[in-house]
Amino acid sequence: MTSAIGIDLGGTNIKGGLVDQHGTIRERHEIPTRAERGSNAVIDDLAALVNHLRRSGPVDGIGLATPGPLDLRNGRIIRAANLPGWIDVPIRDALAAKTGLPVTLENDANAAAFGEFTAGAGRGCQHMTLFTLGTGVGAGVIIDGRVLHGHFDNAGELGHMIVAVGGEPCPCGQRGCLERYSSADAVARRACIPSLERKRQGPPLSAEEVASRAQQGDPICAKVWNDACLYLAVACVNVQHAYNSQRIILGGGMSQAGDFLLSSVRHHLADQAWRLHNDLPEICLAELGADAGLVGAAALLHAHRNKTEKPACSK
Amino acid sequence: MTSAIGIDLGGTNIKGGLVDQHGTIRERHEIPTRAERGSNAVIDDLAALVNHLRRSGPVDGIGLATPGPLDLRNGRIIRAANLPGWIDVPIRDALAAKTGLPVTLENDANAAAFGEFTAGAGRGCQHMTLFTLGTGVGAGVIIDGRVLHGHFDNAGELGHMIVAVGGEPCPCGQRGCLERYSSADAVARRACIPSLERKRQGPPLSAEEVASRAQQGDPICAKVWNDACLYLAVACVNVQHAYNSQRIILGGGMSQAGDFLLSSVRHHLADQAWRLHNDLPEICLAELGADAGLVGAAALLHAHRNKTEKPACSK
Repeated sequence: MTSAIGIDLGGTNIKGGLVDQHGTIRERHEIPTRAERGSNAVIDDLAALVNHLRRSGPVDGIGLATPGPLDLRNGRIIRAANLPGWIDVPIRDALAAKTGLPVTLENDANAAAFGEFTAGAGRGCQHMTLFTLGTGVGAGVIIDGRVLHGHFDNAGELGHMIVAVGGEPCPCGQRGCLERYSSADAVARRACIPSLERKRQGPPLSAEEVASRAQQGDPICAKVWNDACLYLAVACVNVQHAYNSQRIILGGGMSQAGDFLLSSVRHHLADQAWRLHNDLPEICLAELGADAGLVGAAALLHAHRNKTEKPACSK
Repeated sequence: MTSAIGIDLGGTNIKGGLVDQHGTIRERHEIPTRAERGSNAVIDDLAALVNHLRRSGPVDGIGLATPGPLDLRNGRIIRAANLPGWIDVPIRDALAAKTGLPVTLENDANAAAFGEFTAGAGRGCQHMTLFTLGTGVGAGVIIDGRVLHGHFDNAGELGHMIVAVGGEPCPCGQRGCLERYSSADAVARRACIPSLERKRQGPPLSAEEVASRAQQGDPICAKVWNDACLYLAVACVNVQHAYNSQRIILGGGMSQAGDFLLSSVRHHLADQAWRLHNDLPEICLAELGADAGLVGAAALLHAHRNKTEKPACSK
């Protein structure tokens, strides 16, 4: 059984795991991201994490998931919103040099999608899309069993799909992006906008609380929740026409609402989606939670070495 | 120089051509589609067209573009809106049996995209999207130099991307589909809707006339044209986030407006598109016109035989 080390570099924590070829985490370790010390120090921390994990047995290499945008061909982080000051960091080759292991680099949302594809809710299908509904809306797309990158390596940025022309402004410069309505943060924020807030007592709500109150009949929370699921259903329709995914998987904070999220989205999907073809995707919940990124990163290292993915490896 | 026969089977005409490996049409022939005589008779006509074209020299096989949806694995037309009564027609193998040549089958919009990719406005890029803005809005998507099909063979049905939630009803069962606003037919129809029509004299307008009047300052035509280009720009933004195409190519009747279409779409794109990344696609006009489908079909036969495309061949 060959294993790889999967690493998910986030703005707060670095998650590492020794992952076998079936996507099972054999050992895991988590350390804080000391982003303020700069990229070199963090890469040292990554190398120490790798050396800690590889003591358990031989590994084929390292799969590294990071925020982006990335320059995949050259293994560089172009910049990363959660890692201030990280501009054009050649992280792939730096980590390979420090560890003597081949390193595969991937965008964190894509790695999470590949994780669900390998060992989670996407098992058994060659065409799937993962939405992670958290702070924003991240997404990763699998086409014919491979991660979709596109010409500029930014394919699958579905959180910025425009679902409401002229709608809420987004920091990205557009208006009406999906993530302005359907991320966990958007749901929490929209349940507290001043015009609505007057009618409700108490502190700001989390997305989970909004879902819970919506189920109990709170009209403001029901409206906000309904909008989130309506626009998510529109996004699913558009994903279907764009990629013809067999399965669309919902993860991130919003997916804590479980069956309530699924039933709300399916309700709107039945109402919105076309009746021409019998090609509607299955809508289901993610299974790997916060481990999806490191599992997917390790699986990508294996896939690259087996040449089922394009070689974005350092060695 | 090896050649292939490319055929584009439409509801009115069948276009055939002897196409070399560079996508140049060496000889062409067009016959009416006698759809009312049933699929067997039309397949006989296709075989006769092939035999006419192959007299000019040896050919590697036939690339056949047809309306869909198709079952590509089994080479069958599931049904075709323009060919009444054609249900589950095994057209690929039937034509191969009648001609003794290998046949590659492809959806007509995908074939047109592959034609532009091979020998038209998409030359030199590996990631492109073609919109054909005609009776409806067709689309074909090239990812890494290959046609995107998806799990159900219906990927890239971008005419039914929802761009206006709760908008105009579409015969597909959805509301607010792109093709309700941005097809040539939609532009012609919307310039004549009763509430607007009262203000305008004369017979119904074509999309080209609407464009022309919009340029001359006719307020109704300007509004209809502006809507078409706004929603097309939104579709381009969403295509960009979905596929990260290097180039988005506009063809079909609407593209007769040329620079006026390009400048209108680019204007809205500059207004709508995100400012986070420098990954905006080039927007340009199709080059092959009505020949794109047959050129692309022939090119797909070559690509399948060279194994740069998945083998959807009959032999």
